[in-house]
Amino acid sequence: MEEKKMVTAITGQAEDFSQWYVDVIRKAELADYAPVRGCMVIRPYGFGIWERARDLLDLRIKRDAGCQNAYFPLFIPQSYLEKEAEHVEGFAPEVAWVTHGGDEELEERLAIRPTSEAIICSMYSKWISSYRDLPLLINQWSNVVRWEKVTRPFLRTTEFLWQEGHTVHQSEEEAEEYTLMILQMYKDFFWEDLAIPVIDGIKSEREKFAGALRTYAVEAMMPDGRSLQAGTSHNLGQHFAKVFDIKYLDEKQKEVYAWQTSWGVSSRIIGALIMTHGDDSGLMLPPKVAPVQVVVVPIIFDATKEKVLAESRKLAEELNSEGIACKVDDREGQTAGWKFAEWEMRGVPLRLEVGPKDLEKGTVLSVRRDNRKKEFIPRDGVSAFIKDFLPAFQQDLLKRAEERQEALTQVVEDYGEFKHLMEGRPGFLISGWCGDDACEGKIQEETKATVRVIPLDEMDFPKKCLCGKKAKRAAYYAKAY
Amino acid sequence: MEEKKMVTAITGQAEDFSQWYVDVIRKAELADYAPVRGCMVIRPYGFGIWERARDLLDLRIKRDAGCQNAYFPLFIPQSYLEKEAEHVEGFAPEVAWVTHGGDEELEERLAIRPTSEAIICSMYSKWISSYRDLPLLINQWSNVVRWEKVTRPFLRTTEFLWQEGHTVHQSEEEAEEYTLMILQMYKDFFWEDLAIPVIDGIKSEREKFAGALRTYAVEAMMPDGRSLQAGTSHNLGQHFAKVFDIKYLDEKQKEVYAWQTSWGVSSRIIGALIMTHGDDSGLMLPPKVAPVQVVVVPIIFDATKEKVLAESRKLAEELNSEGIACKVDDREGQTAGWKFAEWEMRGVPLRLEVGPKDLEKGTVLSVRRDNRKKEFIPRDGVSAFIKDFLPAFQQDLLKRAEERQEALTQVVEDYGEFKHLMEGRPGFLISGWCGDDACEGKIQEETKATVRVIPLDEMDFPKKCLCGKKAKRAAYYAKAY
Repeated sequence: MEEKKMVTAITGQAEDFSQWYVDVIRKAELADYAPVRGCMVIRPYGFGIWERARDLLDLRIKRDAGCQNAYFPLFIPQSYLEKEAEHVEGFAPEVAWVTHGGDEELEERLAIRPTSEAIICSMYSKWISSYRDLPLLINQWSNVVRWEKVTRPFLRTTEFLWQEGHTVHQSEEEAEEYTLMILQMYKDFFWEDLAIPVIDGIKSEREKFAGALRTYAVEAMMPDGRSLQAGTSHNLGQHFAKVFDIKYLDEKQKEVYAWQTSWGVSSRIIGALIMTHGDDSGLMLPPKVAPVQVVVVPIIFDATKEKVLAESRKLAEELNSEGIACKVDDREGQTAGWKFAEWEMRGVPLRLEVGPKDLEKGTVLSVRRDNRKKEFIPRDGVSAFIKDFLPAFQQDLLKRAEERQEALTQVVEDYGEFKHLMEGRPGFLISGWCGDDACEGKIQEETKATVRVIPLDEMDFPKKCLCGKKAKRAAYYAKAY
Repeated sequence: MEEKKMVTAITGQAEDFSQWYVDVIRKAELADYAPVRGCMVIRPYGFGIWERARDLLDLRIKRDAGCQNAYFPLFIPQSYLEKEAEHVEGFAPEVAWVTHGGDEELEERLAIRPTSEAIICSMYSKWISSYRDLPLLINQWSNVVRWEKVTRPFLRTTEFLWQEGHTVHQSEEEAEEYTLMILQMYKDFFWEDLAIPVIDGIKSEREKFAGALRTYAVEAMMPDGRSLQAGTSHNLGQHFAKVFDIKYLDEKQKEVYAWQTSWGVSSRIIGALIMTHGDDSGLMLPPKVAPVQVVVVPIIFDATKEKVLAESRKLAEELNSEGIACKVDDREGQTAGWKFAEWEMRGVPLRLEVGPKDLEKGTVLSVRRDNRKKEFIPRDGVSAFIKDFLPAFQQDLLKRAEERQEALTQVVEDYGEFKHLMEGRPGFLISGWCGDDACEGKIQEETKATVRVIPLDEMDFPKKCLCGKKAKRAAYYAKAY
């Protein structure tokens, strides 16, 4: 049974950040490697985080973006995927192909969806005939497959979970406005729900989605100085409408092509949560997405065991009935100290300890996950304390992440300095950019850094590009996950 | 644009039930055919029903069955699928195979999961080492693929959505108890949430799940006299534990194989909802799963248009704020009569009409979907009226379905009569059964009827089997979807 045992210690962040990341995932039982190359299993604790994040985003997608959910097929006929030239060029190298159904060889190969534009547009072409059918606002939660060469749990896996929105509009302006509204919705989701600060802007031609007119994105800076693309919102223009024949009769009875958007956020946000908030003791979860917000650990002595267990369970039941996700760890055979470490590693925001002395004094000891600050709380004030604590803790995590992101962002004018910084723990380097693809390509080749976004808000930036030419705009450079 | 138009009339149920079913699905925009053989698109209105049913079942799975959700890979290596002999024999003929990833041919083919026992058991083998790890109670919501020869929207499609529970226990008794608890959970879900009466029992050897020790099922009788298998709960025994090496150290430190269950309900329940409750005007939805529970139709005249629209919107807003899913149909260019028919076809339980006279009198006219009974309600009593109406309507639908199911159930002793009845609109025929597989096979061959379930509750049944031998138990026969 030896090989079945889990790892028992977490590598320090400073020692090896990548190993720390993998250790946390295995030790907190967030995910496990599957027996298929590049695939993972999302275990119940990891999936609990995903369910909460998904529900929070789903609420925004319905309420703020006005979408309804639907479900489109997993399979896309090869000929459909090949209709939009840029799209197929971008995705074909990473498609998994179904060639046989039962004992039969298929006449046409089927792609497992790497993204669903092709199959969805073929349906939209049937459903849309008049301006009265627009805007059409649909979202899908699904699994997608991209045959990746190098994989890492949550961040890049052959199969992953995501949502993909696909909307159709009457005009370029309306589609552009919607694309930017989604970008704002994603920003709100990351800042408010996940406590992850993100920067946002437009992607360069080189980095945009295969088939889009323009791609906007939110990017989050990880503690190791690398940027994570956390969500993208594409204005597809009429690229897909023209090849899939999505036309409608406008108010003047004229037949015209429609305008489209698509946008997505995936299960990689769990990777972003782990890295943004975790520390050397393990995970640290924002209360809004924590499967367990409060853990009660009974302090057991033989003489008072039954009383303490009863009181602990009663407390947990009370808190749960008030909508606080609370768990009591009443397992036998583990010390209180082992349990403290276990729940810290799982990132539970607050621990409550209930011992015999607490019963006498009518108190409970609370311990915060971030700074381990201890506080005795009167027993009848526990629920009120927690209701204040959880949103405050959410804010504290955001502030901590924001400060680090700021510390990891700097303006660089000189290409020599830029190259030097990119060799360390670079963070975001803001430079001026001439806008030439060749210049961007050269910088990428020489430093592995890419333009993460071109900011939309006005900001000061160096007058010269890293290549020496006149800068037309600012650019956030970083090495990316 | 001619071919883009939807069908405009529904075939009568008595005229052609199959065509009625397909007409309702297309006209109510529940689903559409996809450009891949046997695949469908679940459109927003159909998906809205699925979301509600899924959430109600998910609540039971967490609360009553104590499961947590997780996510396992879509792909199963061929060698894993082939480990359990009965399992592969049952599923191999309907597996879709991935043979290429990007430009590479794979060394081993990957099955798109037809069900996930093989991949899940391979992980459980890693995760379980001690009796302390048990019971392990996990559920998954996912898409699965079975390469079906004959398909029909929702009822049998190449790809479908479902939940599959997979649990591991210390003893056969515990696994059996859990299997039966799930069967009861499914019964409650169908009766209480979907207003669909089901019968339940154990499957014969011939009809059980490929790889199970015993399969239990709930079956629902459709109005055309055919039975729909609505949910199954399998006691897997140690079949998978032995081939996937799921062992644990028991309390005496002895290494033993574990006992398992698996169980599932799929998106075919939407088909069951359509058929169980629909009528010649279209869908009729139980309030618990209706995306729109109440529709407000303003009665528009030029002089009072603004007032009536304002009042209609205010009413809808009020109801929504009280948790009633209410929609106001304020579309221009459609008559009130057209809207009435449209929302009846979409199965909305209650329609409210707001016209200028209602504004004067301080009333609203309500019309029930089932019998079109009209009732004037005082404006300030609308919300209270609806809160009484919705659960009562749910009960009325259940009662209507129960009465039909009873009318479609009869005891038959004579095989001649049995064969005659099976040629018409047979429903459930209860007979005595000798228990021989050969007898069951002959009846199936001659009549296309199968043993749907062997009831668990004691009941009277004919002393002789249809074959003339002594009957050992009762059996529910029916033609099945």
